[in-house]
Amino acid sequence: MKTSSVTVAVDAMGGDHGVCVTVPASIDSARANPRLHLILVGDKSSIENELNKCRDFSAVKDRIQIKHTTEVVAMDEKPSVAMRNKKDSSMRISINLVKEKLADASVSAGNTGALMAVSRFVLKTPPGIDRPAIVFNIPSVTGHCHLLDLGANIDCSAEQLYQFALMGSILSQAVDGISAPRVGLLNIGTEETKGNEVIKEAADLLRADPRINYIGFIEADGIFRGEADVVACDGFSGNVTLKACEGTARMFSQFVKDGINRNWLTKLSGLTFLPVLLGLKKKMDPGEYNGGTMIGLRGVVIKSHGSADRASFATAIRLAALEVEKNIPHLIEDWFSDKTESKASEG
Amino acid sequence: MKTSSVTVAVDAMGGDHGVCVTVPASIDSARANPRLHLILVGDKSSIENELNKCRDFSAVKDRIQIKHTTEVVAMDEKPSVAMRNKKDSSMRISINLVKEKLADASVSAGNTGALMAVSRFVLKTPPGIDRPAIVFNIPSVTGHCHLLDLGANIDCSAEQLYQFALMGSILSQAVDGISAPRVGLLNIGTEETKGNEVIKEAADLLRADPRINYIGFIEADGIFRGEADVVACDGFSGNVTLKACEGTARMFSQFVKDGINRNWLTKLSGLTFLPVLLGLKKKMDPGEYNGGTMIGLRGVVIKSHGSADRASFATAIRLAALEVEKNIPHLIEDWFSDKTESKASEG
Repeated sequence: MKTSSVTVAVDAMGGDHGVCVTVPASIDSARANPRLHLILVGDKSSIENELNKCRDFSAVKDRIQIKHTTEVVAMDEKPSVAMRNKKDSSMRISINLVKEKLADASVSAGNTGALMAVSRFVLKTPPGIDRPAIVFNIPSVTGHCHLLDLGANIDCSAEQLYQFALMGSILSQAVDGISAPRVGLLNIGTEETKGNEVIKEAADLLRADPRINYIGFIEADGIFRGEADVVACDGFSGNVTLKACEGTARMFSQFVKDGINRNWLTKLSGLTFLPVLLGLKKKMDPGEYNGGTMIGLRGVVIKSHGSADRASFATAIRLAALEVEKNIPHLIEDWFSDKTESKASEG
Repeated sequence: MKTSSVTVAVDAMGGDHGVCVTVPASIDSARANPRLHLILVGDKSSIENELNKCRDFSAVKDRIQIKHTTEVVAMDEKPSVAMRNKKDSSMRISINLVKEKLADASVSAGNTGALMAVSRFVLKTPPGIDRPAIVFNIPSVTGHCHLLDLGANIDCSAEQLYQFALMGSILSQAVDGISAPRVGLLNIGTEETKGNEVIKEAADLLRADPRINYIGFIEADGIFRGEADVVACDGFSGNVTLKACEGTARMFSQFVKDGINRNWLTKLSGLTFLPVLLGLKKKMDPGEYNGGTMIGLRGVVIKSHGSADRASFATAIRLAALEVEKNIPHLIEDWFSDKTESKASEG
């Protein structure tokens, strides 16, 4: 674990709220972690304007830099267009800083597709990894589960699912401190006969790797019951799982509001119960967790929720620093180079 | 709409609880609906034993028959084995009664795979329908959404997705009384460029059919926001959506319990708030809704949740009677024969 300073490049213009959220969240993060240095990437005057509004700025001033850029990737911009035409965007320059070793990690609340495309193009994947994935912490009754992929790869091969599982296992080991994380494959039943050929083949690959504590197929509800520490799936199913969880959690929140507003008695009891309910909402909504890791890149890139508020964006920055300190990209590179070497020596 | 009597064949032995749940639920259903006749299919002495325990039995005695069978399909039995070896099972005989027009519908809480295989083999699909699907009501902030398929068909063609959407639209029209139900396709984004080729082709088919009010792609969270009345997807994504919703709802229920038990103040407020919370749980957990329609068959077959309690199983029986009264299988057959005819005349 690195104990020296950590530098995070923040895409200050990304997300629904831009500098209004990213700048105060950066200040909060710097105050909370004295080893943290930040490079705020974006329009200099907008950033300075926000910095001057933050009364805590002076306390962390020497650990905050600004990197001026002229362009912004729009939230609905096509990834290919963002790649070709926005070479001076705050998103692109943030990733470039990681590539140039001027930053250890980058955080952006911008367009997910563009961030994945730019990160992959600039940082590249280490040998043995076909494609990066997006991994998210999903809440469960016993803690959380690392679910991947979450939308970067719609149709996946068995080998890709296996790679996702391996990367998730490394992440869970390092971040959660679990020596043998329980790794499952998302399926529509737990019996070995369930699912299509791709999933069955991925299961064979996982069973054959002694470094993985493969526990078998897991259904989506098993994630929330805390049956696994890591669950691998294709990006379509992963996205559906995350969105169904978010949708259910928000529906719950709406129903609770309606329930509270029913009459004076429910209003009164709701008032007493409110702190519990608010804590609950935060516990359940993965959007509130905030911070999807773009895993399988030569560098740490964290995707914050587009609608993240100040506290949520600070969570994403904290996650970035943690993954740098835990050396995630190097751990992954090592595991996969072991595998590449052993394959080469077998051949 | 049929207003005469409705006869439902109940697989009395199916589900986790068998006759202890199915028999009292049948009595409740018969009491609630004076047009309802029931054939309880299963072991005669077990059924009689349960009937005699129900004090309301005498009031509905003349509308309850027993059909004795000697076999039971186990919950974990392979569908192919159930098909081949259990020809006198309560499940099989219930479906046979529908085929023989001795019942209008069948309800079972048994093994889903076996029920689908048996129903498809005995009842068949009408012309123009490749495969039956399982459709479920998913709760939303504005009411509910008919989601299909829920696990019967893992890999689907564009034509199958189109057929699911059409069947869902007919069901929603008849059951919800909506003249032009909003029909969406589950995807990982709402833009037309999202998803794989199968989904894009299904979207083209839906756009080309003037009988469907196709509203485009919908993300899983949109289902819970009430953005569509019908959402079609492959059985893998559908199962994941349902299980993620159930898992989140149950996790919520657990967190609420934990929150209430925190201290005396939360216990007190929880007590006042309990009726709201219990209503909420029922509103949110699709397992509580109970009753998945096996759609696209020449007959009404309802799959109840295996763990259904008395009230939930009665809900499934009510759904069966409603679908008979609304003539769902005939409506579907008519729509698809229109399509088959117009294709033939085009050709």
